[in-house]
Amino acid sequence: MRVIVALGGNALLRRGQSPDADAQMGNLRTVVKTLAQLARKHELIITHGNGPQVGMLALESAADPNLTRPYPFDTLGAQTQGMIGYWLLQALQNALPGRQVLAMVTQTLVSAVDPAFDDPTKFVGQVYEREEAEKLAAEYGWTVKPDGPHHWRRVVPSPAPQRVVETRLVRKMVREGVVIVCAGGGGIPVIRDAQGRLSGVEAVVDKDLTASMLAEALDCDAFLILTDVPRVMKHFGTPRQEEIAHTTPYELRAMDFPAGSMGPKVEAVCRFVETTGDMAAIGKLDEAERILGGYAGTIVTPNARWPLTSTL
Amino acid sequence: MRVIVALGGNALLRRGQSPDADAQMGNLRTVVKTLAQLARKHELIITHGNGPQVGMLALESAADPNLTRPYPFDTLGAQTQGMIGYWLLQALQNALPGRQVLAMVTQTLVSAVDPAFDDPTKFVGQVYEREEAEKLAAEYGWTVKPDGPHHWRRVVPSPAPQRVVETRLVRKMVREGVVIVCAGGGGIPVIRDAQGRLSGVEAVVDKDLTASMLAEALDCDAFLILTDVPRVMKHFGTPRQEEIAHTTPYELRAMDFPAGSMGPKVEAVCRFVETTGDMAAIGKLDEAERILGGYAGTIVTPNARWPLTSTL
Repeated sequence: MRVIVALGGNALLRRGQSPDADAQMGNLRTVVKTLAQLARKHELIITHGNGPQVGMLALESAADPNLTRPYPFDTLGAQTQGMIGYWLLQALQNALPGRQVLAMVTQTLVSAVDPAFDDPTKFVGQVYEREEAEKLAAEYGWTVKPDGPHHWRRVVPSPAPQRVVETRLVRKMVREGVVIVCAGGGGIPVIRDAQGRLSGVEAVVDKDLTASMLAEALDCDAFLILTDVPRVMKHFGTPRQEEIAHTTPYELRAMDFPAGSMGPKVEAVCRFVETTGDMAAIGKLDEAERILGGYAGTIVTPNARWPLTSTL
Repeated sequence: MRVIVALGGNALLRRGQSPDADAQMGNLRTVVKTLAQLARKHELIITHGNGPQVGMLALESAADPNLTRPYPFDTLGAQTQGMIGYWLLQALQNALPGRQVLAMVTQTLVSAVDPAFDDPTKFVGQVYEREEAEKLAAEYGWTVKPDGPHHWRRVVPSPAPQRVVETRLVRKMVREGVVIVCAGGGGIPVIRDAQGRLSGVEAVVDKDLTASMLAEALDCDAFLILTDVPRVMKHFGTPRQEEIAHTTPYELRAMDFPAGSMGPKVEAVCRFVETTGDMAAIGKLDEAERILGGYAGTIVTPNARWPLTSTL
């Protein structure tokens, strides 16, 4: 079976933890244990988030007195792919002696006319007072918006992922049994110009939607999103809240989920299941193998009659 | 023919230029033109330096108020592999439509008992007053040394490269015609512990020596170091200085070269030629094709009778 796993941000950083390198490498050990179990039985592709990491590097870059202007988000995203790619590469090599692991830099193609470019919505970097924010906007060509009643922040567009530019290489390597780490942070966002040339854009692509699109392009049999909750909740945050063990895109789309966290994850699994007719799941970081077996997590299948534990 | 090209630091940053992302991407365009010419005729592996880039990220990390301690050099090196790997990846894809290009994160294995660990020599990061330097040394376990009469700086070991951990994957992909970017900054330095597990170390591996070692491991037919001088100079900096068009390791080893710049490059090409009996060269960034043809650069061959322009 070919499986793609999208790691949530908390695979690297727990809430409130300071973003030290050793803390993040330590956190990864838990999830790498379960990833190694999957890799022993299946072809495996791993994607990961980079929200806190790219935020940290963006702040560092903005504070660097040697730069004329802060580094753009394509380059910062590439830095996080190198860093997190290295951490995962080494941990996976240690957990899977004799197995080849590849951490690759990958770009995600978006459309230059994606409507997201007309309406940037994704807050990035630190908060400013209004005056300071407007000064920076004029200086660097940023778009800034109020974030809450007192602060302003930079916003960048979040366009829809169209294709991981290096998909052909990923497919070639995964077929040969190489464990692949790619599409980190949703991928480095790029567009194609009139001459067909690629160039980076100031944007952030949703990591779960990129993973979903890549899962489809690679004909994966299963798409797992691993995060810090055991299951998706129905009526979340109300007295009627209830864990969902098995559901369908149709049922999920009838519910409401928070836009910032569970929303994009649910959208990503629904798209994969609707498009491919294969299974997807959302569950806990240390339970990948049990989720794939149908024993944990929220399993999403094209219809409710899907035999959970026998097909996988 | 299989060719490995080691790009000098000035492929990315000219002396005195500020390290902005767009400036570095712009500089790369020159060298990518000549790299694309090589890639059309040969199997091609590209390595690159990261001195100014890793220095910049180290300073940014040291100044980050959210970190308990600055990021270690393995992680910072990985960041630069992602960043510079992305810049090269995109520029090469644009210059070589239809060709597969792979920028991979790679680790360089060094010996845990390398004598360099007892005598760190490589200055990194900013200069401090003595008192401040010693305080930081106590706080973070750094080694600090005087750098000139007034300042102190951190030093890290520069151990000898033993193997690029991902060599097997590089060989597999280059055989299939994929243009590979790897071993950036000499590679992320790692050691193996008693259980065979890899872990990062606070060190910097010389980029030219890593490229030389990788060139040998991959059975490359030619090893080119591209930098900002057209040729190596005999009696450099004296009135008798003279360009060397063709030489041997034996002749080169009888000359003196500056330790900081030309020294490691000369050592790297000598080792490759001595070990493999193949050709190496040092020359200008925009002349890769003419150097490989024997028309430019300093060509180093096992003996002086090597027929320069006919074999290549």
